[in-house]
Amino acid sequence: MFQQLSHAKVFQAYAEKIEFPTTPENLYDPIRYILSLSGKRIRPLLVLMGSTLFDEEKAALALPASTAIEYFHNFSLIHDDIMDKAPLRRGQPTVHQKWNDSVGILSGDALLVKAYEELAKCPAQQLGALLRLFNKTALEVCEGQQYDMDFELRNDVTADEYIDMIRLKTSVLLGCALQMGAIVAEADEAAQQLLYAFGMNLGIAFQLQDDLLDVYGDPETFGKQVGGDIISNKKTILFIKLKELVSTADAKELDYLLNSDIASEPTKVTKMKALYARYGIEDFAVALKEKYTATAYEKLEAIDVDESRKKTLFTLADALMHRVQ
Amino acid sequence: MFQQLSHAKVFQAYAEKIEFPTTPENLYDPIRYILSLSGKRIRPLLVLMGSTLFDEEKAALALPASTAIEYFHNFSLIHDDIMDKAPLRRGQPTVHQKWNDSVGILSGDALLVKAYEELAKCPAQQLGALLRLFNKTALEVCEGQQYDMDFELRNDVTADEYIDMIRLKTSVLLGCALQMGAIVAEADEAAQQLLYAFGMNLGIAFQLQDDLLDVYGDPETFGKQVGGDIISNKKTILFIKLKELVSTADAKELDYLLNSDIASEPTKVTKMKALYARYGIEDFAVALKEKYTATAYEKLEAIDVDESRKKTLFTLADALMHRVQ
Repeated sequence: MFQQLSHAKVFQAYAEKIEFPTTPENLYDPIRYILSLSGKRIRPLLVLMGSTLFDEEKAALALPASTAIEYFHNFSLIHDDIMDKAPLRRGQPTVHQKWNDSVGILSGDALLVKAYEELAKCPAQQLGALLRLFNKTALEVCEGQQYDMDFELRNDVTADEYIDMIRLKTSVLLGCALQMGAIVAEADEAAQQLLYAFGMNLGIAFQLQDDLLDVYGDPETFGKQVGGDIISNKKTILFIKLKELVSTADAKELDYLLNSDIASEPTKVTKMKALYARYGIEDFAVALKEKYTATAYEKLEAIDVDESRKKTLFTLADALMHRVQ
Repeated sequence: MFQQLSHAKVFQAYAEKIEFPTTPENLYDPIRYILSLSGKRIRPLLVLMGSTLFDEEKAALALPASTAIEYFHNFSLIHDDIMDKAPLRRGQPTVHQKWNDSVGILSGDALLVKAYEELAKCPAQQLGALLRLFNKTALEVCEGQQYDMDFELRNDVTADEYIDMIRLKTSVLLGCALQMGAIVAEADEAAQQLLYAFGMNLGIAFQLQDDLLDVYGDPETFGKQVGGDIISNKKTILFIKLKELVSTADAKELDYLLNSDIASEPTKVTKMKALYARYGIEDFAVALKEKYTATAYEKLEAIDVDESRKKTLFTLADALMHRVQ
């Protein structure tokens, strides 16, 4: 029966049944609020997919782990939004904006504990392994956020450092989600590691694609303002690579574009794109993205289960990477 | 051999061996810093004592749990200090004061995860039980901190609400620490509950005593400024009970004392003490403290182990409650 329902519906049905106390209101209302803002819920689905890849019967057992991953992700959003002073999240006011910083700190803390409460519901035999993987990943996500903040204050960040930052901040959690599903399904260690690597490499590729789409995406389908990263001087892979390669002469123009208010926004985007073109930045970033995508696919291919079982994950990867199926 | 060393030394030797990564510096330096500020380390010792009460041989197995409790306590200090805008902790700059709020939020998060990392090292057979107790307690501590902040904005907090707040914010962690030790030592459920209740009731009594000492303590031995809570309008059990009982006529004087800058500090303290005396506030608070102390001792007495094994815990309780041994 479990297989007949989609993972998304099964997860939603499970998560909706979890009740939070009504008081103290300022602790639990923000948690209900952030969880109600509809995200893509991709991380909990990865847990269930990771489980189903090896054993459909075990996917129901992976529901607490999938909820733990979703809670952890939302905890990190609440705290990151405070640190980044972000007013909006998924088009709605952030928790600290709607309440205040203290409420954001404390409700985030409580949501992290709730994640561990879900973990504690996992099968006892796998609890230790799940907990160790989850802890390792949670620390890496904290490290990634710290590097991201540190990089804002530095002018010498390298492409390698950037890749490592996005690996920690966003990609390891995807690998962790998949591997947790595999652990619950009692997959062997080698298969677990391959699935983790698939998720992590796909996550890096996806983030690089996000940087690319911001500049080269189709305005009709991108959803955000094309060129937004350029306008806000965001340190993307494109920007960082340009900084690495730029000649002394062009560095002056780059500085002007970064620091002057004179250039109108469309002009700034056009001129930055010209600089990117001069140094082959788009090609560099596309090649990098392709490298991580290819590695992700290789890892999934190498897992020793029937190819038909991998279809869902390949389809998901295709969809995320906008590949023709 | 384990018994021959004091619990404090054993804990210190264990905790000192745990290494934190060197980078990112802004994530791990604050953790090293807060852990280096010498607190009383009473909570990790409670874990070890809770274990030794039932089985000396098991105390070494309780070291990860004791470290988890100490890390959790320090995580909550870092985050509470941000929320309370506290500049000093144990006489030194708080983490957010020495670095900034973002560093405080993120390094606190990482320290909470490190607590769970220690938990994951506990014996596999007890991991589920330890994790569930720890999670429940961690949520309660968050609730207590939220109530504490909520109470700052309210004028109608009752004594019962205050007791419940300090129970959640500070006392359940003491009960949890002792019970975790008992779990590792494989004590039966009834004994675990009694030990938990001993710690929780002792914690409430200790907090009430703290409120009392601030007003009635010996300036020679108190360590802090006597009357400090009165001067800062802190909502202690004394203040809250006075608010509950005060007549309309005396309420005017109370309002004046709370809101006027005219009264010099010594005058304010003297006049508040006169109000406390008029309503029997000291006697009320002493009786309440004695009630919780007595309950704590009863719970410890009721535990079914040889009386000689309880001596360390009785001695600790006597010391905390300034009782003649």
